[in-house]
Amino acid sequence: MNEIKIFSPATVANVSCGFDVLGFPLKQVGDEMVVRKTLDRGIKIKVFGDNNLPLEPEKNVAGVVAIAMLKPDNQPFGIEIEIYKNIKPGSGLGSSAASAAGTAFALNRLLGDKYTQTELVEFAMLGEKLASGMAHADNVAPALFGNFTLIRSYTPLDVIGLRAPKKLYCTLIHPQIELRTEDSRKVVSKTLELKKAVTQLGNISGFVSALYTDNYKLIARSLHDEIAEPQRAKLIPYFDEVKKAALSAGALGAGISGSGPSIFALSKGKKNAQKVEKAMHQIYKNTGIEYKIFVSKIAKKGVREL
Amino acid sequence: MNEIKIFSPATVANVSCGFDVLGFPLKQVGDEMVVRKTLDRGIKIKVFGDNNLPLEPEKNVAGVVAIAMLKPDNQPFGIEIEIYKNIKPGSGLGSSAASAAGTAFALNRLLGDKYTQTELVEFAMLGEKLASGMAHADNVAPALFGNFTLIRSYTPLDVIGLRAPKKLYCTLIHPQIELRTEDSRKVVSKTLELKKAVTQLGNISGFVSALYTDNYKLIARSLHDEIAEPQRAKLIPYFDEVKKAALSAGALGAGISGSGPSIFALSKGKKNAQKVEKAMHQIYKNTGIEYKIFVSKIAKKGVREL
Repeated sequence: MNEIKIFSPATVANVSCGFDVLGFPLKQVGDEMVVRKTLDRGIKIKVFGDNNLPLEPEKNVAGVVAIAMLKPDNQPFGIEIEIYKNIKPGSGLGSSAASAAGTAFALNRLLGDKYTQTELVEFAMLGEKLASGMAHADNVAPALFGNFTLIRSYTPLDVIGLRAPKKLYCTLIHPQIELRTEDSRKVVSKTLELKKAVTQLGNISGFVSALYTDNYKLIARSLHDEIAEPQRAKLIPYFDEVKKAALSAGALGAGISGSGPSIFALSKGKKNAQKVEKAMHQIYKNTGIEYKIFVSKIAKKGVREL
Repeated sequence: MNEIKIFSPATVANVSCGFDVLGFPLKQVGDEMVVRKTLDRGIKIKVFGDNNLPLEPEKNVAGVVAIAMLKPDNQPFGIEIEIYKNIKPGSGLGSSAASAAGTAFALNRLLGDKYTQTELVEFAMLGEKLASGMAHADNVAPALFGNFTLIRSYTPLDVIGLRAPKKLYCTLIHPQIELRTEDSRKVVSKTLELKKAVTQLGNISGFVSALYTDNYKLIARSLHDEIAEPQRAKLIPYFDEVKKAALSAGALGAGISGSGPSIFALSKGKKNAQKVEKAMHQIYKNTGIEYKIFVSKIAKKGVREL
């Protein structure tokens, strides 16, 4: 195989109760990429779409992943990566993760599937480190694994593919302001009351149990965040109003997508997710802030060949 | 029904990764109780076994549960409770929980099953409050629900029955020293590093996922405690040695049972649990400390009629 075209999904990390350990990919929202072997050695990157991403491989998220996977000096070929970006950087939708995970997936195919999925996550984490200073996996892991994905541990890296109830839909609003992951991390205190940690332990356990038992009511009861949301919500315009409107419209829960500014809501069934979409529109349409809204199924697969 | 005889199980709370939210009952270790209606009004308690438990209903764990359930002045009958205690108070095996949960279960049967299981947990928590000053549910809930049981939330109380893989066995060593829950709670700091909370979130999620997928290896990787064990281990003689020996003998994991001093280990299969039992004997037999060791299946049912 000399060329591969892929879809690399947007991802929602944290998912309220799963701070830094949980994420899921969207079926209908993401970037497309074409990766091909070239006769010229070295790595060449082209990015299409509204963004200012650097194209030098050492400074580009896809580039650093490719450098690590190829060790270019030892390869008899070069690589060209075309990225058609639909996910804006700084959206809280795993923009850098989509590029990093997509590159890892595509190159692995071109190299004859020599790496395991967890190894691909490790490569993709290099892209995250470049983008945010932190080699976090809660976007790249779900982008590669599909479904709800758990990062049980970083040392050693232990990624667990969970599952997703069939009727679970996500509504996402993306205010077109940039919130850098680095800045969003800074507002989260490095210590936590034990009481809040215990509450979060209860909720994530309830949530994981609910995923295995298709218990939508338990999903709703478990979707709370004691850690990031109380500290980060203020960084996101109209967060409280959007969340309240989503819940009133029938969402199971709503919260900050990754480090924001996007806000996600989970609903049972597409119709409910569309009602939530409408409610989010109502809040944002007169604010003067540009925004996009998506409704999508949870993707069963992560990055996929087109 | 005028009389009921029951078995009320010992319980292991916390289970390493589930501080204050997770517990399970033992099939072969627990108290027996007989509860009967009497013509004389009021509540009468008899306790058999090696202990100094108070018999006045207002000061007795079973008594306060019975008072709350019966509102004795309104009943045309009285109640006699006989408790045959095999679980010592202050063992970390849910001794007070067995009396409280057993009373709640038995009285509910005598009253014609008028309460839900979660309401019974709430009644039984009154006994825990008397015993330790804290109305915790991580022993009484598994004692009533059976299997691994999650306390997702206290406000409102939300108890979730999880499941247990078939081949999961527990080995327990109970050093015959008393460690009061109150004292054991005091050594646990009221704040926590965020990093440790995240590690614990990953482990409890991995553990719950493993329960649903019969993934014994994932159970083993997830059985770690960042919260209580590092602070409480020093209160338990030879804890580190027992844990190390249990793991070397093939246990999936080992940790403090509830607030100690008992130490539990989980193993795949009875034979492995017995190897762990032997290893625990080896550590304790020359210490001069009296101890008991049990091997038991995880109980699928909680309190049960005999």
